Amino acid sequence: MRRSEGVSSLSPQGGEEKRTLREALFSPRSVALIGQSNDSGKTAGRPLKFLRQAGYAGRVYPVNARRGEVLGERAWPSVDALPEVPEHAYVVTPIDGVMEAIEACGRAGVVVATVLSDGFAEVGEAGRAREARLQEIVSTTGMRIVGPSSLGIVNLRNGMLLTANAAFDEPDLPSGRIFAASHSGGMIGTLLSRGKACGIGFAGLVSVGNEADLSLGEICDAVLDDPEIDAYLLFLETLRHAEKLRKFAQRAAAVGKPILAYKLGRSDQGRELAATHTGALAGENDIADAFFRDCGIARVETLSALIEGLPLFARVPARREKSTPRVAVVTTTAGGAAMVVDPLAARGVDVAPPSEETYGRFKAAGIKISPSRLIDLTLAGARYEVMKAALDILTTAPEFDVVVVVVGSSARFYPELAVQPIIDSAGSDKPIAVFLVPEAPQARAALGRAGIANFYTPEACADAVAAALGRRMPRAIEAVERGASSPSPYRTRQQPTSAGGRGKTSRTLDELAAYALLDRLGIPHAPSAALAADAAQTPALPFGYPVALKVLSSEIVHKSDVGGVTLGIPDAAALVAAITAMRTRLPQAPRVLVQPMIAGIGEVLIGYRVDPDAGPLVMVAAGGIFTEIYSDRSLRLAPVDGATAREMIAEVRGLKLLSGFRGKPAGDIAALAQAVAALSRLAVEPSVIEAEVNPLIVRPQGEGVVAVDAVVRMR
Amino acid sequence: MRRSEGVSSLSPQGGEEKRTLREALFSPRSVALIGQSNDSGKTAGRPLKFLRQAGYAGRVYPVNARRGEVLGERAWPSVDALPEVPEHAYVVTPIDGVMEAIEACGRAGVVVATVLSDGFAEVGEAGRAREARLQEIVSTTGMRIVGPSSLGIVNLRNGMLLTANAAFDEPDLPSGRIFAASHSGGMIGTLLSRGKACGIGFAGLVSVGNEADLSLGEICDAVLDDPEIDAYLLFLETLRHAEKLRKFAQRAAAVGKPILAYKLGRSDQGRELAATHTGALAGENDIADAFFRDCGIARVETLSALIEGLPLFARVPARREKSTPRVAVVTTTAGGAAMVVDPLAARGVDVAPPSEETYGRFKAAGIKISPSRLIDLTLAGARYEVMKAALDILTTAPEFDVVVVVVGSSARFYPELAVQPIIDSAGSDKPIAVFLVPEAPQARAALGRAGIANFYTPEACADAVAAALGRRMPRAIEAVERGASSPSPYRTRQQPTSAGGRGKTSRTLDELAAYALLDRLGIPHAPSAALAADAAQTPALPFGYPVALKVLSSEIVHKSDVGGVTLGIPDAAALVAAITAMRTRLPQAPRVLVQPMIAGIGEVLIGYRVDPDAGPLVMVAAGGIFTEIYSDRSLRLAPVDGATAREMIAEVRGLKLLSGFRGKPAGDIAALAQAVAALSRLAVEPSVIEAEVNPLIVRPQGEGVVAVDAVVRMR
Repeated sequence: MRRSEGVSSLSPQGGEEKRTLREALFSPRSVALIGQSNDSGKTAGRPLKFLRQAGYAGRVYPVNARRGEVLGERAWPSVDALPEVPEHAYVVTPIDGVMEAIEACGRAGVVVATVLSDGFAEVGEAGRAREARLQEIVSTTGMRIVGPSSLGIVNLRNGMLLTANAAFDEPDLPSGRIFAASHSGGMIGTLLSRGKACGIGFAGLVSVGNEADLSLGEICDAVLDDPEIDAYLLFLETLRHAEKLRKFAQRAAAVGKPILAYKLGRSDQGRELAATHTGALAGENDIADAFFRDCGIARVETLSALIEGLPLFARVPARREKSTPRVAVVTTTAGGAAMVVDPLAARGVDVAPPSEETYGRFKAAGIKISPSRLIDLTLAGARYEVMKAALDILTTAPEFDVVVVVVGSSARFYPELAVQPIIDSAGSDKPIAVFLVPEAPQARAALGRAGIANFYTPEACADAVAAALGRRMPRAIEAVERGASSPSPYRTRQQPTSAGGRGKTSRTLDELAAYALLDRLGIPHAPSAALAADAAQTPALPFGYPVALKVLSSEIVHKSDVGGVTLGIPDAAALVAAITAMRTRLPQAPRVLVQPMIAGIGEVLIGYRVDPDAGPLVMVAAGGIFTEIYSDRSLRLAPVDGATAREMIAEVRGLKLLSGFRGKPAGDIAALAQAVAALSRLAVEPSVIEAEVNPLIVRPQGEGVVAVDAVVRMR
Repeated sequence: MRRSEGVSSLSPQGGEEKRTLREALFSPRSVALIGQSNDSGKTAGRPLKFLRQAGYAGRVYPVNARRGEVLGERAWPSVDALPEVPEHAYVVTPIDGVMEAIEACGRAGVVVATVLSDGFAEVGEAGRAREARLQEIVSTTGMRIVGPSSLGIVNLRNGMLLTANAAFDEPDLPSGRIFAASHSGGMIGTLLSRGKACGIGFAGLVSVGNEADLSLGEICDAVLDDPEIDAYLLFLETLRHAEKLRKFAQRAAAVGKPILAYKLGRSDQGRELAATHTGALAGENDIADAFFRDCGIARVETLSALIEGLPLFARVPARREKSTPRVAVVTTTAGGAAMVVDPLAARGVDVAPPSEETYGRFKAAGIKISPSRLIDLTLAGARYEVMKAALDILTTAPEFDVVVVVVGSSARFYPELAVQPIIDSAGSDKPIAVFLVPEAPQARAALGRAGIANFYTPEACADAVAAALGRRMPRAIEAVERGASSPSPYRTRQQPTSAGGRGKTSRTLDELAAYALLDRLGIPHAPSAALAADAAQTPALPFGYPVALKVLSSEIVHKSDVGGVTLGIPDAAALVAAITAMRTRLPQAPRVLVQPMIAGIGEVLIGYRVDPDAGPLVMVAAGGIFTEIYSDRSLRLAPVDGATAREMIAEVRGLKLLSGFRGKPAGDIAALAQAVAALSRLAVEPSVIEAEVNPLIVRPQGEGVVAVDAVVRMR
């Protein structure tokens, strides 16, 4: 039996070995279909049928232990019996036969095995043992595995339809330049059929399954230097293996290939960021948002924008700076266009009127438009010359980033009037997005063929335009790159997913120890005197009255809730009385902390946390209970610099108060940004799992910030 | 010339005369096409072409002053030259000829004239004069007018295609049981073509134009007792003529015909509700939301839900009480179903797991499902028997209000597996909504034919399900029905649209006069002593110190902003000093007000205002600046009863504080609800335009509420 050439694990430098992984995944010279059924109506019968339908030119070896022939072709009894070692094996047997097949593949020197069956880590002890054995086979043999629970891998350019997804029983498969990767196996079929309906084609699609070995990020990375792939489309259920996804995203940004993602779990209320005294914040969808933004991945909210949006993303470059994107909306129907303007505005996109100069060009061209945000061609008429001249003006007007064209009724039966001029503007410098108001399948298909993004719903149009214009270059987050000796801040596969990993392996610092950490980071805090809780005499304090008294204990995180905080103590006698009272309430705490009362313009919560999925995060939120009620916070992957910290502060609505809102004095935003950036540098301290300063008092401009409470949790 | 029978204006009792308006609008025995062109490619050439294509059986009279023949038919030179008075005239001449034609129609006794041209109130003085003349003709002749700017009126059941909308050049017009009315003329074509694509048909469609005479509500009302119309679909740009829309909605609810609306202007930041010291609140989209909710109109956010949702609305009755709707989601693809669950959850719809009993029925039927919110049939298999049995169980399970079915890949090529059982469940007691994950036009059409709501996007599916389940019976708002002598609280046509109508015709009460109004309404306020601002001696107060001092002047609305408020004055000497200081700051104000300082659990803003569109409104908001920052308020049409007031209080997120949030004592919610209901009764006082209590101090449970400031504006 001829041995296939080996493949080593993904190297960030790329090169010869990675090309080989890509080849084994998407262009294997030989494939084995282990468990191929003789019934093409069954799931396990589909791969051979699809490969033959698509005319795949590689060698195909059906393997079936019980039959010598399947679907009219010779079948082999086992991998070992094959005349050569296949480069890629698709294991489509029921779970009972999977491990034996994988063992055989590993022994034989198969390069990549893709596993269809479920029944691994998700089903309990026996499944976890199977998954561990898969990983053992990977590490001992060098074979790589896709799945389990993978509906397969498809390369539409060479007919390599190694999939059991029934949707690939499709005539005229839409080949194109997009690579799609999905956690959901069913979705690769949906992307195919919905993409086809709007003229979107794919180079390849992969159902990554449960990522026991190869992760979605690694598989995408493996095809990064495929010159026939222009862009990526991701359907995600989780942020599993986020570190690898991030690395892929950074490399993709470097070569200018956009990534568009849809992620489930917007309404997930399951977990909480604030493990300390802010209580639960609603949902953590914003963690995924922060992750995508910082990785340069554009996230859309609608399924349609995911599928229909890519031609737009390929034309809109990622931005380096945050800025307000400006969009021209030109239309033959004001009512239809307003349906796009509404959701665009809701997403913060400025639908801008043309400049004086641009108005002048319309006038010179003899096109009558009224001064408005909408460039309404109704008066001028829905004619080819009018729309073409309008597009010629708008695609060369410097004030716009994207031109949105909304075409009314004529698009249905008379595409030559207002749709053809858009097609004829496909080569213009400015990206164009189209919403056809009526049902107009022919016009949609023609726009799709011309590579122009067009949308079936106004909401998807706005979603895609806003996401494309909001896409940033990945933020450099170098400090997270640790040496191999540091523990990874990301969750490993077997680790439990409880919020923040809180458990037996973590400990909380008391407030004084937490301040020592702040000292090291350079975050100012209130002067603090620690006293024994049974001190009977008046303590000598290094600061004046009034003071605050707090219980000092690493065991008590929510001090206020247990009567562990007394504020505004006016003098020494009152302090002694307060200490006595607190000792009575909390006899288990041997020490108390005294601090001066500190006033400021406002209170802010700043936090750092190692998220089990997204990794180190930094947060800024309005202080007090409003954080909780309004979920008003800003997140980034940590660390951040001062400029990013300022961006975060500007994103928290409640912190408008600090900018001199309604005639009030302004707070020291610069010092606040410094403190946020300083806290975020905990990303280089693997021992800290979580740190929160709440409140951080923001004093008037020039007077800095002062932490008056802090909670730190260590690994 | 035979005279057509007249039609009097809409009578709320219905009966003979209204039937006649309906007939003239939608089933005229004769129509004139005034300005009909000989070129069917032109806008003015379409009506005759469409009427003939559709085989309209009524008598059609083209009128063209310059030609004896148009499109091969005899043309008359004028309305006066016709052999009979047409029941309905569609005036499609350019603006220059419109008034002459309308005058002629009015003189001749035409029942209804529909006007295509624009060039009326929207274009300045000459246009306003034309519009006034239209109205004069209406009132002197009794002729009713649709438009101007109306693209026409369509009755698909009898081929009465009296429209210039090019989209009606459609083969196989989709006739059905829905009536559509639109402010945008282009949209009636879009509804037609998009509806047709998903199996939705229409009884009639009307482009109401600028509603110079007949409003959208009146036209919809005119067909309310048409037994072939089951439901209404509205595309709205404004809330113009809201009073008539509300009356129609109440009558439609009474006969069980649902109304589904899409309204532009979600992002409208143009106007502001709070004319007093809260400053601007972001957007007033929530006023439209409140209006629709209180009228029993379901509002959707997406165009697709508007078009695809109606079969669902026809099956889901409006609720009398606010409740958490419960939805079953059954699927053959967990990933696809999650795309619907996410936006459902975001809209507050509870996707509930089955009850123990329902689980038991699945088990008894031999269908293997895991305990989860999703009823995932993946393990059981996407087969007819499985899906049919699952639907039989779920459509008879008492715990669900709606069953959402999400079908995966099989829907595309194998609808017999999981789509056919849905079609075969069309007659079940429980409404069903379907999202087909792949592109599956045949299955969609089949579901449409079976009258089952099905959606092209997961977002539209969730939007429609949430809107259907959130629809309430119209709230009885009797007190708003005033006698004819009271001025209408709604904006009349020519009135300027400035926020709240503030202008020369309104005056603001001073705080003391405002309290007198609160006394009359039964809303408690702080005891207040008014003093001359130059009083030199210690005033005798009917309450103790500390006190608050405020300038008392109807000229100063924003007291705090001008130094007109001093809080926490400890004693008489300090009060005299404070009065002196205030007189120096505000020499123009002759009087001051002294009140005791009043503490409570929290501060609330309650407000009443006559909105120029929606009419009398009552508002509850979190006090302080957070109302402004988070737009956190609840609105209803006024008046409200105590139960509705409690609903409103529960909707304001910031008022969670009053319910004993995080261990704090609870406030007197009952007294707060009473105060809101009391304030809302201003709806029966036409003289009050606006009243705002801010803050209203909410004291602990049982201790009531106290207004400590109020602003009232009178007509």
